Amino acid sequence: MDEKHVRTMLAAVADGSCPIDKALTSLKTAPFSDLGYAKVDHHRALRQGVAEIIYGEGKTAAQIRGICDSMATAGQERVLITRLDADKAAILHEPLFLDYHPEARIGIIGGIPEPDGNGTVVVAAAGTSDLAVAEEAALTAEMLGSSVVRLYDVGVAGIHRLLAHADDIEQACVVVAVAGMEGALPSVIAGIASCPVIAVPTSVGYGASFGGVAALLAMLNSCASGVSVVNIDNGFGAGYQASMINHVSSRHVR
Amino acid sequence: MDEKHVRTMLAAVADGSCPIDKALTSLKTAPFSDLGYAKVDHHRALRQGVAEIIYGEGKTAAQIRGICDSMATAGQERVLITRLDADKAAILHEPLFLDYHPEARIGIIGGIPEPDGNGTVVVAAAGTSDLAVAEEAALTAEMLGSSVVRLYDVGVAGIHRLLAHADDIEQACVVVAVAGMEGALPSVIAGIASCPVIAVPTSVGYGASFGGVAALLAMLNSCASGVSVVNIDNGFGAGYQASMINHVSSRHVR
Amino acid sequence: MDEKHVRTMLAAVADGSCPIDKALTSLKTAPFSDLGYAKVDHHRALRQGVAEIIYGEGKTAAQIRGICDSMATAGQERVLITRLDADKAAILHEPLFLDYHPEARIGIIGGIPEPDGNGTVVVAAAGTSDLAVAEEAALTAEMLGSSVVRLYDVGVAGIHRLLAHADDIEQACVVVAVAGMEGALPSVIAGIASCPVIAVPTSVGYGASFGGVAALLAMLNSCASGVSVVNIDNGFGAGYQASMINHVSSRHVR
Amino acid sequence: MDEKHVRTMLAAVADGSCPIDKALTSLKTAPFSDLGYAKVDHHRALRQGVAEIIYGEGKTAAQIRGICDSMATAGQERVLITRLDADKAAILHEPLFLDYHPEARIGIIGGIPEPDGNGTVVVAAAGTSDLAVAEEAALTAEMLGSSVVRLYDVGVAGIHRLLAHADDIEQACVVVAVAGMEGALPSVIAGIASCPVIAVPTSVGYGASFGGVAALLAMLNSCASGVSVVNIDNGFGAGYQASMINHVSSRHVR
Amino acid sequence: MDEKHVRTMLAAVADGSCPIDKALTSLKTAPFSDLGYAKVDHHRALRQGVAEIIYGEGKTAAQIRGICDSMATAGQERVLITRLDADKAAILHEPLFLDYHPEARIGIIGGIPEPDGNGTVVVAAAGTSDLAVAEEAALTAEMLGSSVVRLYDVGVAGIHRLLAHADDIEQACVVVAVAGMEGALPSVIAGIASCPVIAVPTSVGYGASFGGVAALLAMLNSCASGVSVVNIDNGFGAGYQASMINHVSSRHVR
Amino acid sequence: MDEKHVRTMLAAVADGSCPIDKALTSLKTAPFSDLGYAKVDHHRALRQGVAEIIYGEGKTAAQIRGICDSMATAGQERVLITRLDADKAAILHEPLFLDYHPEARIGIIGGIPEPDGNGTVVVAAAGTSDLAVAEEAALTAEMLGSSVVRLYDVGVAGIHRLLAHADDIEQACVVVAVAGMEGALPSVIAGIASCPVIAVPTSVGYGASFGGVAALLAMLNSCASGVSVVNIDNGFGAGYQASMINHVSSRHVR
Amino acid sequence: MDEKHVRTMLAAVADGSCPIDKALTSLKTAPFSDLGYAKVDHHRALRQGVAEIIYGEGKTAAQIRGICDSMATAGQERVLITRLDADKAAILHEPLFLDYHPEARIGIIGGIPEPDGNGTVVVAAAGTSDLAVAEEAALTAEMLGSSVVRLYDVGVAGIHRLLAHADDIEQACVVVAVAGMEGALPSVIAGIASCPVIAVPTSVGYGASFGGVAALLAMLNSCASGVSVVNIDNGFGAGYQASMINHVSSRHVR
Amino acid sequence: MDEKHVRTMLAAVADGSCPIDKALTSLKTAPFSDLGYAKVDHHRALRQGVAEIIYGEGKTAAQIRGICDSMATAGQERVLITRLDADKAAILHEPLFLDYHPEARIGIIGGIPEPDGNGTVVVAAAGTSDLAVAEEAALTAEMLGSSVVRLYDVGVAGIHRLLAHADDIEQACVVVAVAGMEGALPSVIAGIASCPVIAVPTSVGYGASFGGVAALLAMLNSCASGVSVVNIDNGFGAGYQASMINHVSSRHVR
Repeated sequence: MDEKHVRTMLAAVADGSCPIDKALTSLKTAPFSDLGYAKVDHHRALRQGVAEIIYGEGKTAAQIRGICDSMATAGQERVLITRLDADKAAILHEPLFLDYHPEARIGIIGGIPEPDGNGTVVVAAAGTSDLAVAEEAALTAEMLGSSVVRLYDVGVAGIHRLLAHADDIEQACVVVAVAGMEGALPSVIAGIASCPVIAVPTSVGYGASFGGVAALLAMLNSCASGVSVVNIDNGFGAGYQASMINHVSSRHVR
Repeated sequence: MDEKHVRTMLAAVADGSCPIDKALTSLKTAPFSDLGYAKVDHHRALRQGVAEIIYGEGKTAAQIRGICDSMATAGQERVLITRLDADKAAILHEPLFLDYHPEARIGIIGGIPEPDGNGTVVVAAAGTSDLAVAEEAALTAEMLGSSVVRLYDVGVAGIHRLLAHADDIEQACVVVAVAGMEGALPSVIAGIASCPVIAVPTSVGYGASFGGVAALLAMLNSCASGVSVVNIDNGFGAGYQASMINHVSSRHVR
Repeated sequence: MDEKHVRTMLAAVADGSCPIDKALTSLKTAPFSDLGYAKVDHHRALRQGVAEIIYGEGKTAAQIRGICDSMATAGQERVLITRLDADKAAILHEPLFLDYHPEARIGIIGGIPEPDGNGTVVVAAAGTSDLAVAEEAALTAEMLGSSVVRLYDVGVAGIHRLLAHADDIEQACVVVAVAGMEGALPSVIAGIASCPVIAVPTSVGYGASFGGVAALLAMLNSCASGVSVVNIDNGFGAGYQASMINHVSSRHVR
Repeated sequence: MDEKHVRTMLAAVADGSCPIDKALTSLKTAPFSDLGYAKVDHHRALRQGVAEIIYGEGKTAAQIRGICDSMATAGQERVLITRLDADKAAILHEPLFLDYHPEARIGIIGGIPEPDGNGTVVVAAAGTSDLAVAEEAALTAEMLGSSVVRLYDVGVAGIHRLLAHADDIEQACVVVAVAGMEGALPSVIAGIASCPVIAVPTSVGYGASFGGVAALLAMLNSCASGVSVVNIDNGFGAGYQASMINHVSSRHVR
Repeated sequence: MDEKHVRTMLAAVADGSCPIDKALTSLKTAPFSDLGYAKVDHHRALRQGVAEIIYGEGKTAAQIRGICDSMATAGQERVLITRLDADKAAILHEPLFLDYHPEARIGIIGGIPEPDGNGTVVVAAAGTSDLAVAEEAALTAEMLGSSVVRLYDVGVAGIHRLLAHADDIEQACVVVAVAGMEGALPSVIAGIASCPVIAVPTSVGYGASFGGVAALLAMLNSCASGVSVVNIDNGFGAGYQASMINHVSSRHVR
Repeated sequence: MDEKHVRTMLAAVADGSCPIDKALTSLKTAPFSDLGYAKVDHHRALRQGVAEIIYGEGKTAAQIRGICDSMATAGQERVLITRLDADKAAILHEPLFLDYHPEARIGIIGGIPEPDGNGTVVVAAAGTSDLAVAEEAALTAEMLGSSVVRLYDVGVAGIHRLLAHADDIEQACVVVAVAGMEGALPSVIAGIASCPVIAVPTSVGYGASFGGVAALLAMLNSCASGVSVVNIDNGFGAGYQASMINHVSSRHVR
Repeated sequence: MDEKHVRTMLAAVADGSCPIDKALTSLKTAPFSDLGYAKVDHHRALRQGVAEIIYGEGKTAAQIRGICDSMATAGQERVLITRLDADKAAILHEPLFLDYHPEARIGIIGGIPEPDGNGTVVVAAAGTSDLAVAEEAALTAEMLGSSVVRLYDVGVAGIHRLLAHADDIEQACVVVAVAGMEGALPSVIAGIASCPVIAVPTSVGYGASFGGVAALLAMLNSCASGVSVVNIDNGFGAGYQASMINHVSSRHVR
Repeated sequence: MDEKHVRTMLAAVADGSCPIDKALTSLKTAPFSDLGYAKVDHHRALRQGVAEIIYGEGKTAAQIRGICDSMATAGQERVLITRLDADKAAILHEPLFLDYHPEARIGIIGGIPEPDGNGTVVVAAAGTSDLAVAEEAALTAEMLGSSVVRLYDVGVAGIHRLLAHADDIEQACVVVAVAGMEGALPSVIAGIASCPVIAVPTSVGYGASFGGVAALLAMLNSCASGVSVVNIDNGFGAGYQASMINHVSSRHVR
């Protein structure tokens, strides 16, 4: 029941075709979803062909196929499935015309759309072991309509590799900086960039890395302004927010 | 030495007025700052009257005054001083025409500029004890040219207080969500909003809040998409990034 | 706007005295508080003379007096003020006819009401250093209409002291068990009791007690069934929930 | 040796048929169990057909069958077996007429009894991944004689889903709120409910959820009154205490 | 009611002078303390002049004096007061003939008794900063009747200082090893000693010593057999247990 | 080179049969083991037939057999092998006449000796899941010549089960108290006992037990005097120290 | 592009053969690697036959072979492959003439070079379980041109074993001290040595060793001067830095 | 008793002037210190005028003066006093001709010696708040005979500031890298340097910096080779080890 339905119901009350008690019950039992307080990414909905998202972990191949089928029926062109195991992907590949990205453990239906954001999302990763998380971020942003520039293996222990890409960073609309171990990459990037930096700690490391906690703490304590942080290994979350930022527009003015 | 200077120097090499050795030395000893890899918020620099920022903690009133004087000499109209004690503010009030916001511990010189961002930054705070951090975020965003809507005392234990402001949240360009204790506010807001949410855990609480760690962990584990997190009590960092997001523009396209 | 108001408004829509647009706006802008989704302890509201609660920490004496005055104007007979410093209590003592319990740091206006719960709340404390928290729990429960039996200094290192009160525990409606250090009291009590036990860890201890964490963890890992836990030093929370349990009735049947 | 036996023995002392030394030895060597200080859920014992409980983890199928057989011999109609693996359940299914609930890993003998509590226990769960823990709580409460209302997939990131069930929560006798990740559900529910809320953190999540610690801390720091917490994934403990609260009666008055 | 009283009561039941009901009530309401399950250090009680112990922290000088006076009345010759501030000691010095040991923050009434244990308790301390805790252990053991040998400033970074006292360690009945920082002393001593070693971590250190946690963990992980550990800074606990071990005798044979 | 060898060498120096330089080299290169600063449990060595100990973890069956063979050659009658897997035990069973205790994962060669200590070591365990650790402690103490009384399944949630054995505890020479989960058993026992209590936390539990940390912290914070603690699951260490205490004698007097 | 290339380019600018714009672009796009700010171990590069290093973890045998082949093509005589599984080593053994050290999980191509450092690197390990990490350190140092003395099984619980090697420690150029459990070895060694000590905590231990954290904290809190620490199990890092120290020379004077 | 004394004693045994028993007793009671196993920085002792060190914390001005006086009597020219409060420094200034460095809290007697190491120690600090720790490191290294180059305010958020000093880093003999907050500086420096880097985390920061833990963990997890770490705020330890490395020489060859 959206605003139109409430208006219709009120009109029915006004013309007597809906008893007051029945209207009251309707309002009481389902007032929230009907009035539209559910989250809808309005921008995304307005853009053609942008992807819906399924969290694949803990769902069977059959369940995922069922969801995708109903989405297809509803006219959804593109679907992004995260944390999808290779086994399930193999099952879904043919019936769903699914492209599988094994490193990012992402499945894509309907292909990646044309980018329609303000600019580019740079996804930078410190080491080769961080690529899985970085690719999750990059593919997520692309499926949500962002143009992505990948800067991989630019860890701070070889600072020249990062600085060689200073132009990409300076021209970015938003940067996703992915790093494990000491997690220093976002600070160095935020010192170069003039846009928001979303830091993603990864669980890469051993011993006192504590499964990514060392990188997480480093990123939360960044001495550079303009850095915020998502959960360990949460490439999806970073790519999602990065694409949100990349689609910010003046439409929001009150 | 910016790009223009390098070009000039190369021209001098080309016309023989600069010996090769001297050019080589220049390039080797100061290549980085000169080529412009320092962080400059280009957008901000282009907007008139936007504030420079001084971190007040650990600086004496005399030191702060000195920095402000040199900024004034350089033509800087507005200055934002964070983490400024009341004592120092009292000393600086008259000579610097400084307005002091005691709750946020922020001093402002030159007044708050007219907003010039894409839309509004909503700063939401869960409890009255979170106001100091929320105000730090709000004033920072305002000094950087953002229009700010404050939603205070909208903690999740009285969910209707938050939902009464659902319109503000839906129309925001970016939301800063400030909460201590269980830190649940950003998740609920991100469920309503269609824009990025920057979560700020505060050290409000006792016992197993561990000085804000409980709220920090909750925020990092948000079940809602579109949330990123800054350090405990880092209102400045959230306000800074929020204003960055609020000024994202299509200028970035490559 | 409660249910009655919505009904009235719908009637006004039905008879044409309220335009549909105006009704729609009312529903959209304030649907939550008006429909009554705010928390009200219905039982408590129905019982005469039961206390309202003010959290004293971080409020000035003047602010507390203002709140109490407005409560008095609204006809509220009894007020419970928690975490109230002795200094503020001294200021408020005379104007508010406030009784101050220094150990529990609780101020009481209007006296403790007659108990009206199902039975008794037993508040047991392990050591003399835990008394402040235990008294906060006991006075809170009493102000909310519960009869309280205090069993203090019944720590497990002298198990006979606790067992000498086995009758009280067996006959309780709910037990609040307060302990610092190793936090073993709730487990032993839950082994004797046939009612719910609410465990309150205290910050009493040193070294590896980590400000109450040792007791907290012990309580969460109780080998006895029927134990739940509140935050470190949260006597108020335990007393509040204990009184809730003590007032559970068959009114709730659907 | 219960009270009757002690009385009998004292009578034997009185009539000389029991020497004083023998009586003294009896009292000294087994005074505790005999005098009844063991935990007995008196209410439960008085209600017909309510379940006994076996903790299945670490017990072989043969051991569990042995315990159940001896319980059956003793006239126990119903048995609840928690943390029971599917393999063991398959072995026990036929000989014990055992119903197995795979998600909750619970085995039930004798079926679920008619509810006889004061009202309903609401079991609310944030996400689909929390269902195993929630079902453990729900089935436990049902086997102990409580009527249970299940509200699943009502996480705070889609607050309207929860609010659509506000009536169930308002009318509950006690609520069990199950959530992983940021663990915000209990706070929001306690803001709506007028009854005790038992919070159950789950180990659902990754990275900085630290196996449920993030949710546990959030719940301990709830800004809402009336919340207590059990161990991570302890659905049984929450269901047990909830049913205890649901059976609180005025029988307890001293 | 001790064993004698129970016997007397049973005799009264036997001769009819005590009704059965009255006997039953007595047994039910106070069976534990009366039957003697309270902790009594039997050995200590049998030795003349050994000290009673008062934990001074959180008690006023007046309260301590009251306890000491009643002890004196009861014939107690010696009293050990731990964690006693210098201020209170100054007040109690004259009226109680109290000797104050400021470093150990211990007050002694009645002087240190003649040792009567099996052998010597060695108290070894790593650094000068650990002396306060070491002295608390040493004085406690002495007041409980043990002969104490002090080995101070024998930290492992100058291993020859420790080894120069190898004879003392080899001949000890029990060793208390006190250390902060890396807490290595107990392991080295246990490698030399042929008796139990009680390790006491101290809060001496900074940074990653975390108030004694580093030393505590090191001691719990000792690679040497025969080491057990008490809480951080718990010199009293170590001295108490050491003296217990020093008084172990063959009296215990069943 | 023991004392006898040094004396012999000095005699050779005295009679000129050993050059000074050769004597000096001998003293410098191996002075420590030769002078006897290595740890020898002198008491144990003097008692006939007491066991040597092998830590089985990380050693192959062949390695263990080799060590045992050389011990046998050296006349060692009894050997205790801890942390021995069932697989290796099966291999060693026949050639070494090894008795295997699967629960404690202990292998015994030569049988358990006659006890020769001062009294009895009581090994008490809270739950059935703690038996493996308790048995490791009990068998270790027995192999080192102690008489052991086992009190199993005496957890504090059913306090009467423990109190029924109060006599055993009161008469013990030393108590080993083993518990997981909330780890409360040692505190309750130390309140009853008049001898040292060695607490052993076990990794039994889930969620916020953190692999035994909850129990460890509880034991370190025991409110009862006379408790010390060993590492999580370190039954061997507790049994070893307990037997040391059980063999303390007046031989130690200086 | 090294310094020579820049000079050449500047000469080309000077003689007009290189346009200014082209020079500018070259400088901007690749200034860092070209100007030599990448890390090169200059000493190592100058010494013949010293090894290149490959981190084997996460690389397939094929990938490792590819890297080694290209290194061989480039004239690299020796390669050190760390964290190499036995399976991959078996595949690479023949084609690469690779020697595999299973305990250290290190593969070596081209053999260990002649040592060319200032002196010896002593690698000391506390227990047999620490050997894997110690060997990783020792082989790394040897492959980088250091002479290594191994002191294994010199844990502090048998201090004489360590002291018997005091000469080796006193004459070392740098010591790598490897220990798990309580991590005390580096402190004792630093008390004997007159050279830097690099401490390596290992994950050897159980319970409260927390995977090496206990040893790590102990080492960071060493009471001896001259100790620094690397990550848990990071034998490679310690061996690498030790060899760096062993090759320090006066060449560095400015 | 050093080697010479042992030789003399053996000679006395050989010529009969020393009885064997007396020689044996001497060897047993004091063999360690006498044989010289105490730590002596041989290099330092051989260099003229290098400083002795006093840890000032916890010592009174009078105690420090006493130590210095006895050192002066013994001919010690230079003394370094660390962690010296300004108050004590004021007292000691005149009598000891002490120079006080308030930021580093270091007192120096006898002035800084001429450097005599292999090369330079670079001390780099990230922020102005890290200067106290950096100066402690720098002054310590200077007092031990090292030439020090200070690079302050070179934090990674403005990477050009650090790179502008790449020459200093490349030419260093050893680098001490001091940083709080995210602690990224050592990784970036180790990527540029070809010498050992000693990382010093500082307690600078707030919230999730946890008093320097974030920086400590980052440094332990450095992705760059050649980094080791000292305790939080341990500038002295880093300066001490750095100077040790700076004085490494080929004298060590066996």
